[in-house]
Amino acid sequence: MKGAILQYDPAYLDVERNLAAVDGLIDSLDADLLVLPELFAAGYFFKSSEDLRSVAETADGRTVEQLKAWSRDKNAVIVAGFPELTASGIYNSAAVVSPQGLVGVYRKVHLFYREKELFQPGDLGFPVFDVKDRNGEPYRLGVMICFDWYFPESARSLALSGADVIAHPSNLVRKDCPRSMPIRALENHVFTVTANRVGGEESDGELLTFIGQSLACDPAGEVLCSFTREGVGVETFSFDPKTSRNRDITATNNLFGDRRAEVYRLA
Amino acid sequence: MKGAILQYDPAYLDVERNLAAVDGLIDSLDADLLVLPELFAAGYFFKSSEDLRSVAETADGRTVEQLKAWSRDKNAVIVAGFPELTASGIYNSAAVVSPQGLVGVYRKVHLFYREKELFQPGDLGFPVFDVKDRNGEPYRLGVMICFDWYFPESARSLALSGADVIAHPSNLVRKDCPRSMPIRALENHVFTVTANRVGGEESDGELLTFIGQSLACDPAGEVLCSFTREGVGVETFSFDPKTSRNRDITATNNLFGDRRAEVYRLA
Repeated sequence: MKGAILQYDPAYLDVERNLAAVDGLIDSLDADLLVLPELFAAGYFFKSSEDLRSVAETADGRTVEQLKAWSRDKNAVIVAGFPELTASGIYNSAAVVSPQGLVGVYRKVHLFYREKELFQPGDLGFPVFDVKDRNGEPYRLGVMICFDWYFPESARSLALSGADVIAHPSNLVRKDCPRSMPIRALENHVFTVTANRVGGEESDGELLTFIGQSLACDPAGEVLCSFTREGVGVETFSFDPKTSRNRDITATNNLFGDRRAEVYRLA
Repeated sequence: MKGAILQYDPAYLDVERNLAAVDGLIDSLDADLLVLPELFAAGYFFKSSEDLRSVAETADGRTVEQLKAWSRDKNAVIVAGFPELTASGIYNSAAVVSPQGLVGVYRKVHLFYREKELFQPGDLGFPVFDVKDRNGEPYRLGVMICFDWYFPESARSLALSGADVIAHPSNLVRKDCPRSMPIRALENHVFTVTANRVGGEESDGELLTFIGQSLACDPAGEVLCSFTREGVGVETFSFDPKTSRNRDITATNNLFGDRRAEVYRLA
């Protein structure tokens, strides 16, 4: 199947402009799975909780409805970040949509920096979703968002729950994620698809510059596809999610079979 | 304080020759902590369990006694791998010795490839040892051996138990460890010290070639010191183990404080 990553520079708080920009960028999309950045249509470095509230949406709001329309039009599963408005507050979430509609939502578990003042910490754990490629072949899709990468437990939890592919919508501002994702893929024998944004945003006199460098990795920790720091557009790569399920390392070693959970510290 | 890594090519089963070789290589050692490879005096790719038994020793045997003598002579804590003979079988162990004597033993938790036919899996978990530098400053030393690196739970367990430094005696034959150790250091905010061997060994017509590339990393995931694939000798680096204890990532993020163990899967 074919995976695709979109990297671009969203406009702060301008949801309609961002949806139109993405619509143009994916006009000729030919992929089974498309990953968009964290908060891809909203902006990231909110100047106030009012600003965030002005773009927060429920999981059946404008942004997710657009994702569903794209999914139907392109016949692609799409994973994309949005600020999710709920009765218990706003989450930094990602929607998973298929041509049949909303598959599920992931809510960011590890909040970064000033997100802690704005968002609720994710309360859904690390769910894994059953989806299909365009040939009807099922595979299992996990989601983590941006800073979740720093904690190896995030990707590990998804892999142990059966994820073949980890979609990773991001708004990265620190340098270490691009060199770490191949290791996350390798240590779990999964595919990873990190979609980052570019550009910069300012709040309270502080400028955040997003580092681009979106990338997809295979279960051997090799990079399948990558962007530059400034690149804008869609890149695709071919892969077979089922190959992630062979977790043999040698004739006598298996990544999961060799785990010794009885001696690991969790806290 | 100063750390040191010894990388060399041990002779198969020739303990006396290997101890003499190391003795020469560390003749002018000036370091607080020295890490030697896995099974550094024994050889690795045993042709038979008889061959292994011929070099297995108790933790007060020839090899550990030599480590203690070096530790006293050089005034250095030493971590080194040896095949540990016990009433319950032979373990792929590492001894931690100080000028005061044996501090403790780690027994390899994740056995690699044909080690499974020869060694018992480690039964001591991931202990952390209290040691001191040459100025009497205490620090905490964890140990993992070679293939343990592949499982992020190994270094994580040691870091959660308070390790400032992870000594990592190794006999690496696969390519991915050198690029992964900076990530192990970063994701735990610890120092890591990987001492690998070079050369090759053959058993049953199969040749294992050891990849050298020993390296030390700091809590930011930067490489402090590294060897080539073939390099033999001792390399040193300066570091302050206490700096590992600051696990702040941003003004609002702390590596351990932000962990959400309640949503992590352990099995």
